[in-house]
Amino acid sequence: MDELLRAIDFEKHDGLVTAIAQDDASGEVLMVAWMNEQALRQTLASGQVHYWSRSRNALWRKGESSGNVQLLRSLSLDCDGDAVLLRVEQRGGAACHTGKRSCFFRRMEGDRLAEVGVQVFDPAKVYGR
Amino acid sequence: MDELLRAIDFEKHDGLVTAIAQDDASGEVLMVAWMNEQALRQTLASGQVHYWSRSRNALWRKGESSGNVQLLRSLSLDCDGDAVLLRVEQRGGAACHTGKRSCFFRRMEGDRLAEVGVQVFDPAKVYGR
Repeated sequence: MDELLRAIDFEKHDGLVTAIAQDDASGEVLMVAWMNEQALRQTLASGQVHYWSRSRNALWRKGESSGNVQLLRSLSLDCDGDAVLLRVEQRGGAACHTGKRSCFFRRMEGDRLAEVGVQVFDPAKVYGR
Repeated sequence: MDELLRAIDFEKHDGLVTAIAQDDASGEVLMVAWMNEQALRQTLASGQVHYWSRSRNALWRKGESSGNVQLLRSLSLDCDGDAVLLRVEQRGGAACHTGKRSCFFRRMEGDRLAEVGVQVFDPAKVYGR
């Protein structure tokens, strides 16, 4: 853990590192968010992925509202020490708050942006909105 | 193209979006960098991935020094419009300036950070350092 923290360049993004979550089974990229030291420590200690919410300025255990937690399978650091790649088991099968499996559910097709993602759950039911 | 640009939230990161490059054939996550509007336009127009270098404050055609260009296979936008996922064909088989296939070549193994990446080229030969 200390070795990881020493290798990270926290200066680059105001104490944060970019965190990419990838489905460990399918290889699908699920989402990208931010982590700070606390989020990294909690993630490695608990085995459940924690991010740092820049909008709420708070630690955020992924899935704390929806139940769709991410179980950490591996954590890798990039060459310049400002991004981590998390391979995860995505409980509930969906990472996105829209109920899509991946947050990257809009894809350029020719000149258009098309919705292509798989709808896993109904956010109105899960979040009670 | 206009539809994509309208869907992007350029305000969030000072005119930049996070850009994740994933090998289209293997699904391996290769690197993460930044793009601005110009980089997005050039990437979609040319089919070769362009990033925005924050350190050099300049447009950067990936592979312009090493020859290891990235050919764009698809571009997806995330739910909150501040990150794109690029599926690419990585020419030369390596995305990292260290000569490793992926920039994420250090992985936590227990409490240690282990080098696990595949060495594809010798950077001293490619960059003449």
